[in-house]
Amino acid sequence: MSEPTIERIRVRYGETDQMGHAYYGNYMLWFEQARGAWCRARGFTYKELEEMGYKLPVVEVWAKYRGEVKYDDVIAVRIWIGEMRRAAIQFMYEVINETTGQVTTEGYTWHVFVADSMKVISIPPEIRLMMEKEPEN
Amino acid sequence: MSEPTIERIRVRYGETDQMGHAYYGNYMLWFEQARGAWCRARGFTYKELEEMGYKLPVVEVWAKYRGEVKYDDVIAVRIWIGEMRRAAIQFMYEVINETTGQVTTEGYTWHVFVADSMKVISIPPEIRLMMEKEPEN
Amino acid sequence: MSEPTIERIRVRYGETDQMGHAYYGNYMLWFEQARGAWCRARGFTYKELEEMGYKLPVVEVWAKYRGEVKYDDVIAVRIWIGEMRRAAIQFMYEVINETTGQVTTEGYTWHVFVADSMKVISIPPEIRLMMEKEPEN
Amino acid sequence: MSEPTIERIRVRYGETDQMGHAYYGNYMLWFEQARGAWCRARGFTYKELEEMGYKLPVVEVWAKYRGEVKYDDVIAVRIWIGEMRRAAIQFMYEVINETTGQVTTEGYTWHVFVADSMKVISIPPEIRLMMEKEPEN
Repeated sequence: MSEPTIERIRVRYGETDQMGHAYYGNYMLWFEQARGAWCRARGFTYKELEEMGYKLPVVEVWAKYRGEVKYDDVIAVRIWIGEMRRAAIQFMYEVINETTGQVTTEGYTWHVFVADSMKVISIPPEIRLMMEKEPEN
Repeated sequence: MSEPTIERIRVRYGETDQMGHAYYGNYMLWFEQARGAWCRARGFTYKELEEMGYKLPVVEVWAKYRGEVKYDDVIAVRIWIGEMRRAAIQFMYEVINETTGQVTTEGYTWHVFVADSMKVISIPPEIRLMMEKEPEN
Repeated sequence: MSEPTIERIRVRYGETDQMGHAYYGNYMLWFEQARGAWCRARGFTYKELEEMGYKLPVVEVWAKYRGEVKYDDVIAVRIWIGEMRRAAIQFMYEVINETTGQVTTEGYTWHVFVADSMKVISIPPEIRLMMEKEPEN
Repeated sequence: MSEPTIERIRVRYGETDQMGHAYYGNYMLWFEQARGAWCRARGFTYKELEEMGYKLPVVEVWAKYRGEVKYDDVIAVRIWIGEMRRAAIQFMYEVINETTGQVTTEGYTWHVFVADSMKVISIPPEIRLMMEKEPEN
């Protein structure tokens, strides 16, 4: 469960702003892409979770931006589970700018587990098992 | 039907890129916002159309960028119907940068009319009526 | 300084995701738009700040999502200063969904004050004055 | 020069809209990512072009959307040069949804070659050479 997954992403031109850096809101898309990779490394996809009738909407986000991320930089988003509660999960993130070698950003997102009706439910045991599986390498 | 509607939009920082201009893909969001305003000026909303079981997905887009649009500029998107076919509608756009006074962009989008199942259907007569109504001022 | 400014924003179709809600990353664009409005209410623009050689990059963001925001909803972003330090400013946000009447989101962003070279500097007194001015109504 | 380059992209959740498909404006980001890959396949990067003082802003875009692209689908963007003029370049695109096997989108973008001052210039011979190089495989 605590084994991090790493997702590499190349920064798009449209993800920069006139300051010449990646716009702060775009990290949310990168965090999301990392969550997808995290699932995939454990043998399932977030898409499958939704097809099973579940959703994991973001209910809280925090990010601290320390270093620069620019166009065409390759970032590595490290993602791992911070905490898993009865009906909620916290993902932790660390963004390393591989082009500059710097750790540039850290953050977390909290998600609740909801059924199709958008009702918060306890994480079903079979899903908990899928999530606690060690990643395949 | 041919009466243009005008939607004013202030350019966001996150809509610029490191070239210092609005990123070319963001005009698609502005065109969409203008379509929403076009409906509203005729007494209905695109949201209501979807609630009635219809959708108008974009099947073609064209845009020509002539002038500059920068952060904090106010643009006026003029939108009008170019053509209405049995199951398809073409919207035309002209973007005026009110901050500089220039006509900066022109474009069009083609949409098909689909029912909930994503099946293309003839535009129902009552919807056609709604769309052909002169705008309220 | 503590007087809130309110910025109304209508949610775009492209700001939703397949869950049917506004995507969590798009709130960052709305927070930014609210910052622009906050400056404008005090008689200057963020653009002018940049033209004077200053920038206010985001160094930290936090948001808690409580309620739903959907396509075409009108949200009101209330923004005010939480704290002002020697070289840093915290903006606070509260998002009210005017379509549903719910308070849906709260958040903050921390910004540092940098000169053109991206060097952190003390907020110049004349800028501090501009920011501490009561808003014009 | 006419050899296509292929860039594979996995669709992000935030790139979908409430219709359940990728939002039409996001193809512009994918086209841009494909342009970056096209340069890279020829031994240079678009970033380097900008560092040399050149820019290639988009002056026209066209896209036709035929098939569906959904969350988590992997698309392959085929990109090749349509036409190269004295001061302008046309890129052609074909998007294949590898998840469904369908050709979903075709499009083009026109770019002008500008120097730092945003003045349109003839494509310098050394740049033309870089662009006409056969891709490295």
